[in-house]
Amino acid sequence: MTTPSPLPQNDTLSPVAQAAHRARAAAAEIAPLPRAAKDGALLAVADALEARTDVVVTANAEDIARAREAGTSESIIDRLTLTPERVRAIAADVRDVAALPDPVGEVVRGSTLPNGIDLRQVRVPLGVVGIIYEARPNVTVDAAALCLKSGNAVLLRGSSSAYSSNAALVDVLRDAVEAAGLPADAVQLVPGESRDSVKELMRARGLVDVLIPRGGAGLIRTVVEESTVPVIETGTGNCHVYVDAQTDLDMAVDILINSKAQRPSVCNAAETLLVHQDIAGAFLPRALEALAEAGVTVHADERVLEHAATTKATVVAATAEDWETEYLSYDIAAAVVDSLDAAVTHIRRWSSGHTEAIVTTSQAAARRFTQLVDSTTVAVNASTRFTDGGQFGFGAEIGISTQKLHARGPMGLPELTSTKYIVTGDGHIR
Amino acid sequence: MTTPSPLPQNDTLSPVAQAAHRARAAAAEIAPLPRAAKDGALLAVADALEARTDVVVTANAEDIARAREAGTSESIIDRLTLTPERVRAIAADVRDVAALPDPVGEVVRGSTLPNGIDLRQVRVPLGVVGIIYEARPNVTVDAAALCLKSGNAVLLRGSSSAYSSNAALVDVLRDAVEAAGLPADAVQLVPGESRDSVKELMRARGLVDVLIPRGGAGLIRTVVEESTVPVIETGTGNCHVYVDAQTDLDMAVDILINSKAQRPSVCNAAETLLVHQDIAGAFLPRALEALAEAGVTVHADERVLEHAATTKATVVAATAEDWETEYLSYDIAAAVVDSLDAAVTHIRRWSSGHTEAIVTTSQAAARRFTQLVDSTTVAVNASTRFTDGGQFGFGAEIGISTQKLHARGPMGLPELTSTKYIVTGDGHIR
Repeated sequence: MTTPSPLPQNDTLSPVAQAAHRARAAAAEIAPLPRAAKDGALLAVADALEARTDVVVTANAEDIARAREAGTSESIIDRLTLTPERVRAIAADVRDVAALPDPVGEVVRGSTLPNGIDLRQVRVPLGVVGIIYEARPNVTVDAAALCLKSGNAVLLRGSSSAYSSNAALVDVLRDAVEAAGLPADAVQLVPGESRDSVKELMRARGLVDVLIPRGGAGLIRTVVEESTVPVIETGTGNCHVYVDAQTDLDMAVDILINSKAQRPSVCNAAETLLVHQDIAGAFLPRALEALAEAGVTVHADERVLEHAATTKATVVAATAEDWETEYLSYDIAAAVVDSLDAAVTHIRRWSSGHTEAIVTTSQAAARRFTQLVDSTTVAVNASTRFTDGGQFGFGAEIGISTQKLHARGPMGLPELTSTKYIVTGDGHIR
Repeated sequence: MTTPSPLPQNDTLSPVAQAAHRARAAAAEIAPLPRAAKDGALLAVADALEARTDVVVTANAEDIARAREAGTSESIIDRLTLTPERVRAIAADVRDVAALPDPVGEVVRGSTLPNGIDLRQVRVPLGVVGIIYEARPNVTVDAAALCLKSGNAVLLRGSSSAYSSNAALVDVLRDAVEAAGLPADAVQLVPGESRDSVKELMRARGLVDVLIPRGGAGLIRTVVEESTVPVIETGTGNCHVYVDAQTDLDMAVDILINSKAQRPSVCNAAETLLVHQDIAGAFLPRALEALAEAGVTVHADERVLEHAATTKATVVAATAEDWETEYLSYDIAAAVVDSLDAAVTHIRRWSSGHTEAIVTTSQAAARRFTQLVDSTTVAVNASTRFTDGGQFGFGAEIGISTQKLHARGPMGLPELTSTKYIVTGDGHIR
């Protein structure tokens, strides 16, 4: 069954390039595999994670010890930590991925052409997927599972702060994948802890088919600007809640608070509130009280400040910078706008294009907002927090694309595929 | 209806950046337009091209005169030339684009989530599309028509050799678009004839949503390597015809000759012939005769050379370079391979991933070849020449993507769109 890509006979290839070549060969092997073979490997991975939890947790302890020595904050240490319960949860997630339908082989479109040729466009794996990510070691397993399921080989480049954990996890993954009869090189940690290995990965065009950076805005910007490998930009979310002139005030307060404060550290949390001037007097006092109760500091424009005077809200004057800030904290920028169109203009100017919500009772306003706002997700009378692969029913998510090419919004398994056309004739010529 | 993106108040912006900002504002205006408005503009464009043919042909004569002075080859001058008939044909093509269905607004997927939220994924324009292309001025109109139809603004950067023609065509287009009530800035020629304007376009990330280079391999490589704007790689075609051990010899000869010689200058023409060793003795003498009759020079490996001795074929010994060459001429590389899998390995190693054909009577061979070959198009018993938007029934084509992200193979109107999710609730929160 194997038809490996020939490995260039070049001993001077760097370790990263060698890893990429091995990944290409593995990708060619797993691309045509049927679902059963891939699911078998995933279930083996889940079993192995449970059987070797000790090894993983021990390796993780080394990362945690180093992080403590380096004075890392407890919130980051918490994200870094793997307990036996967390490893079991990760294994369960892998089983969930195995249970999802296989995107590969799906016929996206098909027809018989006028000349009798049968044309089919079918989903195929992308090939070699590179993931560059920060502290959380669970991403190592999640990303590998999604890539395997979609028939891709994966090159994992986690942060050096999680190196021991990631190395232990990848050992477990590779052993299980190989025991299941698939090539171990379908899952590899990018060799080297230095920044140079990231740079090399970004220049490996032709070897790596796509890079998906997952992490902070700085990491993503670097990858987007420096990579010659095609990149899927993920995650930056300066999300807006717009409260229209005609609105249900209770609903507007609920959606605002849920969007901002249910989990402020994630990309689909709201960062800016825009309020139509006609409803500002009725809405803002209540909204500001509710935000205060939720512990949110409001970075307010002048018109919002007027309404804040009579409330117990924690309010500071907004500067231009606030409009483009992704706080990821209990902070929100707030402005009064003259009209729905002014809200749209504000969003166009400052949004990262992730998710924007309108709260309105007006059908016309809902329709105009959804037509004019061009973000991955436009929500009508719903929290911004629903922009999520799990919430959307995709079963799993490799990230949320904020770019327009290839994938936009939450990315599930189909977004980890490309397509090819199959043309079948009986000797057809032009 | 207009909610323009605010133009930065910065007089120091370069002409290219100013054009891109104007394009963004125009893109926001045309994105929500219904089909009728866009088709109206396209029909106005077609009428205007016919009404102002003289202006276009006169401008074109300037380009031709300059090209002649510069000693340009007649084949390139022919591609540059616009006659009244050709302008009428271009206008007819625009009317054909108007007749195609509008991809914008198509619901790609939709469901009601378990919590009652209605989720819809709908097609939206990409925004601002940049096209960088070489001599042929008809691309100016084709690309503008496809972008307008799909609700995108377009920045056109043609070659300086066609500058007068392109400038005249864009004048006609802009006037017609504006007369139809759409913003003229939806169609713009990138200002400046120097290479700097191309470079600036390639660095305009955030202003330009995608760049599509159309032209020679050198142009495409430069754009792919230097652009920070996402690029759709098009057109390089080192296509293969593989003749399997079990085959219909007549069909194999017909497909080979059609793939190679029906129009050698295009990207879907065959550049390499691979023959299974078991059929080489029966097939190659006939194939070499037929190639000779078609005027094709064969760059043959040693095993093909053995069979050539007894034929009147024009044969030269192949070097490694031949396997990766896109001749675009009456030349073909040819090799004998040990097996189907060896053919696949050869294709993996050398193909540009455009189109590969197998000629076989074996169902198993056809199935294995289509599973293992990962190119935009895999043809079974059909010429490579069918990889074409027109042949595939897409009605029009902006290019043939040879990359895996976003679009792969012939790109029609849907490939000029992105999607967004619309989430509709009744006050849903998490």
